[in-house]
Amino acid sequence: MSISERIETAITAALRRHQGKSAPPRLGAALYYACTPGGARIRPTILTSVALACGDDQPRLTDAAAASLEIMHCASLVHDDLPAFDDADLRRGKASVHRAFSEPLAVLAGDSLIIAAFEGLIRAAEIDPVRAIQLMAILSERSGMPNGICAGQGWESEEKIDLSAYHRAKTGALFIAATQMGAAAAGQDPEPWEELGARIGEAFQVADDLRDVLLDEEELGKPTGQDDRLGRPSAVSELGVEGASARLDAILAGAIASIPSCPGEAMLAEMVNRTAAKLAPRVKTDRPNS
Amino acid sequence: MSISERIETAITAALRRHQGKSAPPRLGAALYYACTPGGARIRPTILTSVALACGDDQPRLTDAAAASLEIMHCASLVHDDLPAFDDADLRRGKASVHRAFSEPLAVLAGDSLIIAAFEGLIRAAEIDPVRAIQLMAILSERSGMPNGICAGQGWESEEKIDLSAYHRAKTGALFIAATQMGAAAAGQDPEPWEELGARIGEAFQVADDLRDVLLDEEELGKPTGQDDRLGRPSAVSELGVEGASARLDAILAGAIASIPSCPGEAMLAEMVNRTAAKLAPRVKTDRPNS
Repeated sequence: MSISERIETAITAALRRHQGKSAPPRLGAALYYACTPGGARIRPTILTSVALACGDDQPRLTDAAAASLEIMHCASLVHDDLPAFDDADLRRGKASVHRAFSEPLAVLAGDSLIIAAFEGLIRAAEIDPVRAIQLMAILSERSGMPNGICAGQGWESEEKIDLSAYHRAKTGALFIAATQMGAAAAGQDPEPWEELGARIGEAFQVADDLRDVLLDEEELGKPTGQDDRLGRPSAVSELGVEGASARLDAILAGAIASIPSCPGEAMLAEMVNRTAAKLAPRVKTDRPNS
Repeated sequence: MSISERIETAITAALRRHQGKSAPPRLGAALYYACTPGGARIRPTILTSVALACGDDQPRLTDAAAASLEIMHCASLVHDDLPAFDDADLRRGKASVHRAFSEPLAVLAGDSLIIAAFEGLIRAAEIDPVRAIQLMAILSERSGMPNGICAGQGWESEEKIDLSAYHRAKTGALFIAATQMGAAAAGQDPEPWEELGARIGEAFQVADDLRDVLLDEEELGKPTGQDDRLGRPSAVSELGVEGASARLDAILAGAIASIPSCPGEAMLAEMVNRTAAKLAPRVKTDRPNS
Protein backbone atom coordinates (compact mmCIF):
# COMPACT_ATOMS: atom_id res chain seq x y z
CA MET A 1 0.00 0.00 0.00
CA SER A 2 1.28 3.50 -0.76
CA ILE A 3 1.74 6.01 2.06
CA SER A 4 -1.31 7.86 0.85
CA GLU A 5 -3.47 4.71 0.81
CA ARG A 6 -2.28 3.80 4.30
CA ILE A 7 -3.28 7.25 5.57
CA GLU A 8 -6.74 7.28 3.98
CA THR A 9 -7.47 3.75 5.20
CA ALA A 10 -6.41 4.66 8.74
CA ILE A 11 -8.48 7.87 8.83
CA THR A 12 -11.57 6.09 7.53
CA ALA A 13 -11.13 3.33 10.11
CA ALA A 14 -10.72 5.85 12.92
CA LEU A 15 -13.93 7.67 11.95
CA ARG A 16 -16.04 4.58 11.28
CA ARG A 17 -17.05 3.99 14.88
CA HIS A 18 -18.48 7.49 15.14
CA GLN A 19 -21.21 6.64 12.63
CA GLY A 20 -22.89 4.03 14.88
CA LYS A 21 -26.64 3.85 15.32
CA SER A 22 -26.54 5.42 18.80
CA ALA A 23 -24.74 8.48 17.40
CA PRO A 24 -26.55 11.65 16.37
CA PRO A 25 -26.38 11.30 12.57
CA ARG A 26 -25.72 14.92 11.58
CA LEU A 27 -22.77 15.24 13.95
CA GLY A 28 -21.47 11.90 12.68
CA ALA A 29 -21.73 13.21 9.13
CA ALA A 30 -19.99 16.46 10.11
CA LEU A 31 -17.00 14.54 11.48
CA TYR A 32 -16.62 12.64 8.25
CA TYR A 33 -17.16 15.80 6.18
CA ALA A 34 -14.45 17.63 8.14
CA CYS A 35 -11.82 14.97 7.45
CA THR A 36 -12.59 13.78 3.90
CA PRO A 37 -11.67 14.25 1.18
CA GLY A 38 -8.40 15.46 2.59
CA GLY A 39 -6.06 18.20 1.58
CA ALA A 40 -2.46 17.25 0.89
CA ARG A 41 -2.32 15.16 4.13
CA ILE A 42 1.12 16.68 4.62
CA ARG A 43 1.47 16.02 8.35
CA PRO A 44 0.59 12.31 8.29
CA THR A 45 2.73 11.89 5.16
CA ILE A 46 5.72 13.34 7.01
CA LEU A 47 4.93 11.16 10.02
CA THR A 48 4.73 7.99 7.95
CA SER A 49 7.86 8.91 5.95
CA VAL A 50 9.87 9.40 9.15
CA ALA A 51 8.55 6.11 10.55
CA LEU A 52 9.56 4.34 7.32
CA ALA A 53 12.99 5.97 7.43
CA CYS A 54 13.33 4.57 10.97
CA GLY A 55 12.32 1.03 10.02
CA ASP A 56 8.52 1.17 10.62
CA ASP A 57 8.53 -2.05 12.63
CA GLN A 58 4.96 -1.48 13.93
CA PRO A 59 3.05 -0.24 10.87
CA ARG A 60 -0.38 -0.45 12.60
CA LEU A 61 0.91 1.91 15.26
CA THR A 62 2.32 4.25 12.62
CA ASP A 63 -1.01 4.29 10.80
CA ALA A 64 -2.94 5.01 14.01
CA ALA A 65 -0.52 7.84 14.81
CA ALA A 66 -0.84 9.29 11.30
CA ALA A 67 -4.65 9.21 11.47
CA SER A 68 -4.69 10.80 14.93
CA LEU A 69 -2.40 13.62 13.86
CA GLU A 70 -4.47 14.40 10.77
CA ILE A 71 -7.73 14.23 12.74
CA MET A 72 -6.32 16.71 15.28
CA HIS A 73 -5.31 18.96 12.39
CA CYS A 74 -8.81 18.74 10.86
CA ALA A 75 -10.32 19.60 14.27
CA SER A 76 -8.22 22.76 14.36
CA LEU A 77 -9.33 23.72 10.84
CA VAL A 78 -13.02 23.34 11.76
CA HIS A 79 -12.63 25.63 14.76
CA ASP A 80 -10.33 28.11 12.98
CA ASP A 81 -13.00 28.56 10.30
CA LEU A 82 -15.71 29.52 12.84
CA PRO A 83 -17.25 32.99 12.68
CA ALA A 84 -15.38 33.97 15.87
CA PHE A 85 -12.05 33.34 14.08
CA ASP A 86 -11.58 33.43 10.28
CA ASP A 87 -15.31 33.25 9.47
CA ALA A 88 -14.35 31.21 6.41
CA ASP A 89 -17.00 30.04 3.97
CA LEU A 90 -14.67 27.68 2.14
CA ARG A 91 -12.19 25.00 3.12
CA ARG A 92 -10.49 22.55 0.78
CA GLY A 93 -12.73 23.75 -2.05
CA LYS A 94 -16.05 23.08 -0.32
CA ALA A 95 -18.20 24.80 2.29
CA SER A 96 -16.63 25.01 5.75
CA VAL A 97 -18.26 22.79 8.38
CA HIS A 98 -20.25 25.56 10.07
CA ARG A 99 -21.59 26.66 6.68
CA ALA A 100 -22.43 23.12 5.52
CA PHE A 101 -23.95 22.03 8.86
CA SER A 102 -24.29 24.72 11.55
CA GLU A 103 -22.17 26.55 14.05
CA PRO A 104 -23.15 24.30 16.99
CA LEU A 105 -22.27 21.22 14.94
CA ALA A 106 -18.94 22.75 13.92
CA VAL A 107 -18.01 23.41 17.56
CA LEU A 108 -19.02 19.87 18.49
CA ALA A 109 -17.31 18.34 15.46
CA GLY A 110 -14.04 20.00 16.46
CA ASP A 111 -14.42 18.81 20.06
CA SER A 112 -15.30 15.28 18.98
CA LEU A 113 -12.36 15.14 16.58
CA ILE A 114 -9.90 16.23 19.29
CA ILE A 115 -11.20 13.40 21.45
CA ALA A 116 -11.15 10.97 18.49
CA ALA A 117 -7.48 11.83 17.90
CA PHE A 118 -6.62 10.64 21.41
CA GLU A 119 -9.00 7.71 21.17
CA GLY A 120 -7.16 6.31 18.17
CA LEU A 121 -3.92 6.25 20.14
CA ILE A 122 -5.60 4.87 23.25
CA ARG A 123 -6.83 1.94 21.17
CA ALA A 124 -3.37 1.56 19.65
CA ALA A 125 -2.02 0.97 23.15
CA GLU A 126 -2.96 -2.69 22.70
CA ILE A 127 -0.25 -2.85 20.01
CA ASP A 128 2.45 -1.25 22.15
CA PRO A 129 1.46 0.61 25.34
CA VAL A 130 4.81 2.31 25.90
CA ARG A 131 5.03 3.77 22.41
CA ALA A 132 1.31 4.67 22.42
CA ILE A 133 1.73 6.69 25.61
CA GLN A 134 4.76 8.44 24.11
CA LEU A 135 2.71 9.24 20.98
CA MET A 136 -0.12 10.66 23.08
CA ALA A 137 2.34 12.77 25.08
CA ILE A 138 3.74 14.29 21.88
CA LEU A 139 0.27 14.89 20.42
CA SER A 140 -1.04 16.62 23.55
CA GLU A 141 2.12 18.70 23.99
CA ARG A 142 1.87 19.98 20.41
CA SER A 143 -1.90 20.52 20.39
CA GLY A 144 -2.82 22.21 23.65
CA MET A 145 -1.39 24.80 25.99
CA PRO A 146 1.24 26.19 26.48
CA ASN A 147 3.12 25.06 23.33
CA GLY A 148 0.58 23.59 20.93
CA ILE A 149 -1.70 24.86 18.20
CA CYS A 150 -4.28 26.11 20.74
CA ALA A 151 -1.58 28.31 22.23
CA GLY A 152 -0.61 29.47 18.73
CA GLN A 153 -4.17 30.50 17.96
CA GLY A 154 -4.42 32.03 21.43
CA TRP A 155 -1.57 34.44 20.65
CA GLU A 156 -3.89 36.12 18.11
CA SER A 157 -6.00 37.32 21.07
CA GLU A 158 -3.07 39.03 22.80
CA GLU A 159 -2.25 42.71 22.47
CA LYS A 160 1.48 41.97 22.48
CA ILE A 161 2.37 38.92 20.38
CA ASP A 162 5.49 36.89 21.10
CA LEU A 163 6.07 36.31 17.37
CA SER A 164 8.48 33.45 17.74
CA ALA A 165 6.26 31.58 20.22
CA TYR A 166 3.30 32.35 17.95
CA HIS A 167 4.77 30.82 14.80
CA ARG A 168 6.37 27.89 16.63
CA ALA A 169 3.02 26.99 18.19
CA LYS A 170 0.56 27.97 15.47
CA THR A 171 2.18 26.28 12.48
CA GLY A 172 5.28 24.54 13.74
CA ALA A 173 3.70 22.45 16.48
CA LEU A 174 1.95 19.83 14.36
CA PHE A 175 4.99 19.47 12.08
CA ILE A 176 7.15 18.81 15.12
CA ALA A 177 4.49 16.33 16.21
CA ALA A 178 4.71 14.73 12.74
CA THR A 179 8.44 14.07 12.80
CA GLN A 180 8.54 13.14 16.49
CA MET A 181 5.52 10.84 16.31
CA GLY A 182 6.97 9.13 13.23
CA ALA A 183 10.17 8.38 15.12
CA ALA A 184 8.31 7.30 18.27
CA ALA A 185 5.95 5.01 16.32
CA ALA A 186 9.03 3.21 15.00
CA GLY A 187 10.57 2.92 18.46
CA GLN A 188 13.18 5.66 18.04
CA ASP A 189 13.94 8.52 20.42
CA PRO A 190 11.76 11.43 19.19
CA GLU A 191 13.97 14.17 20.61
CA PRO A 192 16.50 14.52 17.70
CA TRP A 193 13.57 14.83 15.28
CA GLU A 194 12.26 18.10 16.69
CA GLU A 195 14.46 20.31 14.52
CA LEU A 196 13.35 18.76 11.24
CA GLY A 197 9.71 19.27 12.21
CA ALA A 198 10.33 22.85 13.30
CA ARG A 199 12.08 23.69 10.02
CA ILE A 200 9.41 22.08 7.88
CA GLY A 201 6.89 24.11 9.90
CA GLU A 202 8.77 27.33 9.15
CA ALA A 203 8.93 26.42 5.48
CA PHE A 204 5.22 25.69 5.46
CA GLN A 205 4.47 29.04 7.08
CA VAL A 206 6.46 30.94 4.45
CA ALA A 207 4.95 28.85 1.63
CA ASP A 208 1.48 29.53 3.04
CA ASP A 209 2.16 33.26 3.14
CA LEU A 210 3.24 33.09 -0.52
CA ARG A 211 0.17 31.08 -1.51
CA ASP A 212 -2.08 33.58 0.26
CA VAL A 213 -0.69 36.31 -2.01
CA LEU A 214 0.05 34.47 -5.27
CA LEU A 215 -2.84 32.06 -5.77
CA ASP A 216 -6.45 32.83 -6.52
CA GLU A 217 -9.34 31.50 -4.46
CA GLU A 218 -10.06 28.60 -6.80
CA GLU A 219 -6.47 27.36 -6.80
CA LEU A 220 -6.24 27.72 -3.03
CA GLY A 221 -9.66 26.23 -2.19
CA LYS A 222 -10.21 28.93 0.44
CA PRO A 223 -10.32 32.74 0.54
CA THR A 224 -7.06 34.52 -0.37
CA GLY A 225 -5.61 37.70 1.08
CA GLN A 226 -6.63 36.56 4.57
CA ASP A 227 -3.33 37.54 6.23
CA ASP A 228 -3.57 41.07 4.89
CA ARG A 229 -7.27 41.37 5.71
CA LEU A 230 -6.80 40.09 9.27
CA GLY A 231 -3.58 42.05 9.82
CA ARG A 232 -1.66 38.86 10.54
CA PRO A 233 2.14 38.85 10.45
CA SER A 234 3.40 37.39 7.14
CA ALA A 235 6.80 36.66 5.58
CA VAL A 236 5.62 38.32 2.37
CA SER A 237 4.69 41.60 4.02
CA GLU A 238 8.05 41.52 5.80
CA LEU A 239 10.36 40.42 2.93
CA GLY A 240 8.38 40.79 -0.30
CA VAL A 241 7.62 37.86 -2.61
CA GLU A 242 11.18 37.28 -3.81
CA GLY A 243 12.66 37.69 -0.37
CA ALA A 244 10.16 35.21 1.04
CA SER A 245 10.95 32.73 -1.76
CA ALA A 246 14.67 32.97 -1.03
CA ARG A 247 13.96 32.44 2.65
CA LEU A 248 11.91 29.35 1.84
CA ASP A 249 14.86 27.84 -0.06
CA ALA A 250 17.20 28.53 2.85
CA ILE A 251 14.83 26.94 5.36
CA LEU A 252 14.43 23.82 3.20
CA ALA A 253 18.20 23.43 2.93
CA GLY A 254 18.40 23.67 6.71
CA ALA A 255 15.60 21.14 7.10
CA ILE A 256 17.41 18.60 4.95
CA ALA A 257 20.67 19.20 6.78
CA SER A 258 18.91 18.57 10.10
CA ILE A 259 17.66 15.06 9.25
CA PRO A 260 19.06 12.71 11.91
CA SER A 261 21.23 9.88 10.67
CA CYS A 262 18.95 6.91 9.87
CA PRO A 263 18.57 4.23 7.17
CA GLY A 264 16.08 6.35 5.20
CA GLU A 265 17.93 9.66 5.28
CA ALA A 266 18.11 10.13 1.50
CA MET A 267 14.47 9.16 1.05
CA LEU A 268 13.48 11.73 3.65
CA ALA A 269 15.45 14.51 1.97
CA GLU A 270 13.56 13.73 -1.21
CA MET A 271 10.25 13.79 0.69
CA VAL A 272 11.06 17.27 2.05
CA ASN A 273 11.77 18.55 -1.47
CA ARG A 274 8.66 16.90 -2.88
CA THR A 275 6.50 18.40 -0.13
CA ALA A 276 7.99 21.83 -0.74
CA ALA A 277 7.36 21.59 -4.48
CA LYS A 278 3.74 20.69 -3.77
CA LEU A 279 3.26 23.61 -1.39
CA ALA A 280 5.14 26.57 -2.75
CA PRO A 281 3.56 28.30 -5.72
CA ARG A 282 5.87 29.23 -8.57
CA VAL A 283 6.71 32.89 -8.19
CA LYS A 284 5.18 34.87 -11.04
CA THR A 285 7.12 38.12 -10.96
CA ASP A 286 4.56 39.96 -13.08
CA ARG A 287 2.10 39.72 -10.19
CA PRO A 288 1.90 42.59 -7.73
CA ASN A 289 4.34 42.08 -4.90
CA SER A 290 2.11 43.08 -1.99
CA MET B 1 -6.62 15.68 53.22
CA SER B 2 -10.37 15.75 52.61
CA ILE B 3 -11.78 14.62 49.26
CA SER B 4 -12.51 18.21 48.41
CA GLU B 5 -8.95 19.34 49.22
CA ARG B 6 -7.53 16.48 47.16
CA ILE B 7 -9.65 17.53 44.17
CA GLU B 8 -8.77 21.24 44.35
CA THR B 9 -5.07 20.49 44.76
CA ALA B 10 -5.12 18.13 41.77
CA ILE B 11 -6.98 20.59 39.52
CA THR B 12 -4.62 23.43 40.42
CA ALA B 13 -1.61 21.21 39.75
CA ALA B 14 -3.01 20.12 36.38
CA LEU B 15 -3.56 23.73 35.29
CA ARG B 16 -0.29 25.12 36.59
CA ARG B 17 1.80 24.16 33.59
CA HIS B 18 -0.51 26.08 31.26
CA GLN B 19 0.52 29.37 32.84
CA GLY B 20 4.17 29.16 31.67
CA LYS B 21 6.01 32.10 30.17
CA SER B 22 5.74 30.76 26.62
CA ALA B 23 1.93 30.59 26.93
CA PRO B 24 -0.37 33.35 25.68
CA PRO B 25 -1.35 34.89 29.03
CA ARG B 26 -5.05 35.62 28.37
CA LEU B 27 -5.75 32.07 27.23
CA GLY B 28 -3.84 30.80 30.25
CA ALA B 29 -6.01 32.98 32.48
CA ALA B 30 -9.18 31.79 30.71
CA LEU B 31 -8.32 28.15 31.45
CA TYR B 32 -7.90 28.91 35.12
CA TYR B 33 -11.05 31.06 35.17
CA ALA B 34 -13.08 28.26 33.57
CA CYS B 35 -12.11 25.72 36.25
CA THR B 36 -11.94 27.78 39.46
CA PRO B 37 -13.61 28.37 41.78
CA GLY B 38 -15.51 25.19 41.12
CA GLY B 39 -19.14 24.31 41.43
CA ALA B 40 -20.03 21.34 43.60
CA ARG B 41 -17.26 19.22 41.95
CA ILE B 42 -19.80 16.41 41.95
CA ARG B 43 -18.17 14.22 39.30
CA PRO B 44 -14.66 14.13 40.81
CA THR B 45 -16.20 13.69 44.28
CA ILE B 46 -18.05 10.59 43.06
CA LEU B 47 -14.88 9.35 41.33
CA THR B 48 -12.79 9.76 44.46
CA SER B 49 -15.50 8.26 46.68
CA VAL B 50 -15.69 5.16 44.49
CA ALA B 51 -11.89 4.86 44.46
CA LEU B 52 -11.84 5.11 48.27
CA ALA B 53 -14.60 2.50 48.51
CA CYS B 54 -12.39 0.23 46.38
CA GLY B 55 -9.26 0.73 48.50
CA ASP B 56 -7.64 3.72 46.70
CA ASP B 57 -4.23 2.03 46.57
CA GLN B 58 -2.85 4.60 44.08
CA PRO B 59 -4.12 7.94 45.39
CA ARG B 60 -1.97 10.01 42.97
CA LEU B 61 -3.65 8.21 40.09
CA THR B 62 -7.09 8.78 41.61
CA ASP B 63 -6.35 12.48 42.00
CA ALA B 64 -5.13 12.79 38.40
CA ALA B 65 -8.27 11.01 37.19
CA ALA B 66 -10.52 13.25 39.29
CA ALA B 67 -8.83 16.40 37.97
CA SER B 68 -9.05 15.18 34.37
CA LEU B 69 -12.74 14.38 34.66
CA GLU B 70 -13.56 17.77 36.17
CA ILE B 71 -11.45 19.59 33.57
CA MET B 72 -13.31 17.78 30.77
CA HIS B 73 -16.58 18.79 32.42
CA CYS B 74 -15.46 22.43 32.65
CA ALA B 75 -14.47 22.32 28.96
CA SER B 76 -17.98 21.22 28.08
CA LEU B 77 -19.51 24.04 30.16
CA VAL B 78 -17.37 26.66 28.39
CA HIS B 79 -18.50 25.45 24.98
CA ASP B 80 -22.14 24.90 26.03
CA ASP B 81 -22.31 28.54 27.16
CA LEU B 82 -21.18 29.87 23.74
CA PRO B 83 -23.58 32.06 21.73
CA ALA B 84 -24.14 29.20 19.27
CA PHE B 85 -25.55 27.05 22.11
CA ASP B 86 -27.04 28.46 25.34
CA ASP B 87 -25.62 31.98 24.88
CA ALA B 88 -25.27 32.12 28.66
CA ASP B 89 -24.00 35.27 30.35
CA LEU B 90 -23.54 33.58 33.72
CA ARG B 91 -21.93 30.39 34.97
CA ARG B 92 -21.31 29.48 38.59
CA GLY B 93 -22.33 32.97 39.62
CA LYS B 94 -19.83 34.84 37.46
CA ALA B 95 -19.58 35.86 33.81
CA SER B 96 -19.27 32.95 31.38
CA VAL B 97 -15.85 32.58 29.73
CA HIS B 98 -16.85 34.13 26.40
CA ARG B 99 -18.33 37.12 28.23
CA ALA B 100 -15.36 37.57 30.58
CA PHE B 101 -12.72 37.03 27.85
CA SER B 102 -14.01 36.68 24.27
CA GLU B 103 -15.63 34.12 22.03
CA PRO B 104 -12.34 33.06 20.36
CA LEU B 105 -10.73 32.57 23.77
CA ALA B 106 -13.73 30.56 24.96
CA VAL B 107 -13.50 28.22 21.98
CA LEU B 108 -9.76 27.83 22.55
CA ALA B 109 -10.15 27.44 26.31
CA GLY B 110 -12.57 24.56 25.76
CA ASP B 111 -10.24 22.92 23.24
CA SER B 112 -7.21 23.38 25.51
CA LEU B 113 -9.08 21.94 28.49
CA ILE B 114 -10.14 18.83 26.55
CA ILE B 115 -6.48 18.28 25.69
CA ALA B 116 -5.39 19.06 29.25
CA ALA B 117 -7.81 16.41 30.53
CA PHE B 118 -6.01 13.75 28.50
CA GLU B 119 -2.62 15.22 29.28
CA GLY B 120 -3.16 14.74 33.01
CA LEU B 121 -3.79 11.04 32.47
CA ILE B 122 -0.91 10.69 30.01
CA ARG B 123 1.42 12.05 32.70
CA ALA B 124 -0.18 9.72 35.24
CA ALA B 125 0.92 6.79 33.08
CA GLU B 126 4.26 6.98 34.87
CA ILE B 127 2.43 5.89 38.04
CA ASP B 128 0.65 2.95 36.40
CA PRO B 129 0.52 2.72 32.59
CA VAL B 130 -2.13 -0.01 32.42
CA ARG B 131 -4.59 1.78 34.67
CA ALA B 132 -3.84 5.15 33.04
CA ILE B 133 -4.69 3.76 29.60
CA GLN B 134 -7.91 2.30 30.98
CA LEU B 135 -8.78 5.69 32.53
CA MET B 136 -8.16 7.44 29.21
CA ALA B 137 -10.30 4.91 27.39
CA ILE B 138 -13.22 5.55 29.75
CA LEU B 139 -12.78 9.33 29.54
CA SER B 140 -12.70 9.38 25.73
CA GLU B 141 -15.64 6.96 25.43
CA ARG B 142 -17.79 9.15 27.68
CA SER B 143 -16.70 12.50 26.22
CA GLY B 144 -16.70 12.14 22.45
CA MET B 145 -18.75 10.42 19.79
CA PRO B 146 -20.84 8.27 19.58
CA ASN B 147 -21.69 7.89 23.31
CA GLY B 148 -20.16 10.83 25.15
CA ILE B 149 -21.20 14.35 26.06
CA CYS B 150 -20.39 15.64 22.55
CA ALA B 151 -22.88 13.14 21.17
CA GLY B 152 -25.41 14.24 23.81
CA GLN B 153 -25.09 17.87 22.82
CA GLY B 154 -25.16 16.80 19.15
CA TRP B 155 -28.64 15.30 19.59
CA GLU B 156 -29.94 18.85 20.14
CA SER B 157 -29.14 19.54 16.46
CA GLU B 158 -31.24 16.63 15.20
CA GLU B 159 -34.81 16.90 14.00
CA LYS B 160 -35.69 13.55 15.56
CA ILE B 161 -34.15 13.08 18.99
CA ASP B 162 -33.44 9.61 20.37
CA LEU B 163 -34.41 10.72 23.89
CA SER B 164 -32.85 7.84 25.72
CA ALA B 165 -29.53 8.15 23.82
CA TYR B 166 -29.72 11.92 24.36
CA HIS B 167 -30.03 11.78 28.15
CA ARG B 168 -27.60 8.90 28.53
CA ALA B 169 -24.96 10.82 26.59
CA LYS B 170 -25.68 14.41 27.56
CA THR B 171 -25.87 14.04 31.34
CA GLY B 172 -25.24 10.40 32.13
CA ALA B 173 -21.93 9.99 30.34
CA LEU B 174 -19.66 11.87 32.75
CA PHE B 175 -21.33 10.25 35.77
CA ILE B 176 -20.67 6.84 34.29
CA ALA B 177 -17.11 8.03 33.69
CA ALA B 178 -16.95 9.10 37.35
CA THR B 179 -17.91 5.73 38.84
CA GLN B 180 -15.95 3.70 36.28
CA MET B 181 -12.81 5.84 36.53
CA GLY B 182 -12.96 5.65 40.32
CA ALA B 183 -13.00 1.85 40.15
CA ALA B 184 -10.29 1.73 37.46
CA ALA B 185 -8.01 4.12 39.39
CA ALA B 186 -8.17 1.70 42.32
CA GLY B 187 -7.42 -1.29 40.11
CA GLN B 188 -10.96 -2.70 40.01
CA ASP B 189 -12.94 -3.80 36.97
CA PRO B 190 -14.92 -0.69 35.90
CA GLU B 191 -17.72 -2.60 34.16
CA PRO B 192 -19.98 -3.33 37.19
CA TRP B 193 -19.84 0.37 38.09
CA GLU B 194 -21.63 1.58 34.97
CA GLU B 195 -25.12 1.23 36.43
CA LEU B 196 -24.41 3.35 39.51
CA GLY B 197 -23.05 6.13 37.28
CA ALA B 198 -25.99 5.92 34.92
CA ARG B 199 -28.51 6.14 37.78
CA ILE B 200 -26.72 9.06 39.43
CA GLY B 201 -26.78 10.72 36.01
CA GLU B 202 -30.53 10.21 35.71
CA ALA B 203 -31.03 11.59 39.21
CA PHE B 204 -28.89 14.59 38.36
CA GLN B 205 -30.91 15.24 35.22
CA VAL B 206 -34.21 15.21 37.13
CA ALA B 207 -32.74 17.34 39.94
CA ASP B 208 -31.44 19.80 37.33
CA ASP B 209 -34.87 20.02 35.72
CA LEU B 210 -36.35 20.76 39.16
CA ARG B 211 -33.72 23.39 39.91
CA ASP B 212 -34.35 25.05 36.56
CA VAL B 213 -38.00 25.55 37.58
CA LEU B 214 -37.79 26.02 41.36
CA LEU B 215 -34.72 28.18 41.98
CA ASP B 216 -34.16 31.78 41.03
CA GLU B 217 -31.16 33.00 39.05
CA GLU B 218 -29.17 34.03 42.10
CA GLU B 219 -29.60 30.70 43.86
CA LEU B 220 -28.74 28.81 40.66
CA GLY B 221 -25.79 30.99 39.57
CA LYS B 222 -27.01 30.84 35.95
CA PRO B 223 -30.16 31.77 34.04
CA THR B 224 -33.32 29.83 35.03
CA GLY B 225 -36.14 28.63 32.82
CA GLN B 226 -33.62 27.61 30.16
CA ASP B 227 -35.26 24.26 29.39
CA ASP B 228 -38.59 25.89 28.75
CA ARG B 229 -37.09 28.73 26.73
CA LEU B 230 -35.01 26.39 24.57
CA GLY B 231 -37.81 23.81 24.22
CA ARG B 232 -35.66 21.11 25.78
CA PRO B 233 -37.25 17.92 27.07
CA SER B 234 -37.59 18.04 30.89
CA ALA B 235 -38.86 15.70 33.62
CA VAL B 236 -40.84 18.59 35.08
CA SER B 237 -42.72 19.37 31.88
CA GLU B 238 -43.43 15.65 31.55
CA LEU B 239 -44.38 14.78 35.16
CA GLY B 240 -44.94 18.05 36.99
CA VAL B 241 -42.89 19.09 40.02
CA GLU B 242 -44.24 16.49 42.44
CA GLY B 243 -44.06 13.69 39.90
CA ALA B 244 -40.47 14.62 39.10
CA SER B 245 -39.60 14.68 42.82
CA ALA B 246 -41.07 11.22 43.30
CA ARG B 247 -39.13 9.97 40.30
CA LEU B 248 -35.93 11.41 41.76
CA ASP B 249 -36.46 9.44 44.99
CA ALA B 250 -37.05 6.24 43.04
CA ILE B 251 -33.91 6.72 40.96
CA LEU B 252 -31.80 7.36 44.08
CA ALA B 253 -33.08 4.19 45.72
CA GLY B 254 -32.13 2.29 42.56
CA ALA B 255 -28.70 3.93 42.52
CA ILE B 256 -27.98 2.81 46.06
CA ALA B 257 -29.22 -0.70 45.32
CA SER B 258 -26.88 -0.90 42.33
CA ILE B 259 -23.65 -0.25 44.25
CA PRO B 260 -21.35 -3.22 43.63
CA SER B 261 -20.24 -5.13 46.66
CA CYS B 262 -17.05 -3.49 47.99
CA PRO B 263 -15.48 -2.54 51.33
CA GLY B 264 -16.89 1.00 51.18
CA GLU B 265 -20.45 0.13 50.15
CA ALA B 266 -22.15 1.87 53.10
CA MET B 267 -19.99 4.96 52.74
CA LEU B 268 -20.94 5.18 49.07
CA ALA B 269 -24.66 4.92 49.79
CA GLU B 270 -24.27 7.83 52.16
CA MET B 271 -22.36 9.78 49.49
CA VAL B 272 -25.21 9.27 47.01
CA ASN B 273 -27.74 10.60 49.51
CA ARG B 274 -25.52 13.53 50.44
CA THR B 275 -25.02 14.44 46.78
CA ALA B 276 -28.75 14.24 46.16
CA ALA B 277 -29.50 16.48 49.13
CA LYS B 278 -27.02 19.02 47.79
CA LEU B 279 -28.55 18.97 44.32
CA ALA B 280 -32.27 18.68 44.67
CA PRO B 281 -34.09 21.83 45.76
CA ARG B 282 -36.77 21.34 48.42
CA VAL B 283 -40.10 21.27 46.69
CA LYS B 284 -42.12 24.34 47.61
CA THR B 285 -45.64 23.32 46.68
CA ASP B 286 -46.94 26.88 46.75
CA ARG B 287 -44.84 27.62 43.66
CA PRO B 288 -46.44 27.29 40.23
CA ASN B 289 -46.07 23.77 38.94
CA SER B 290 -45.09 24.56 35.35
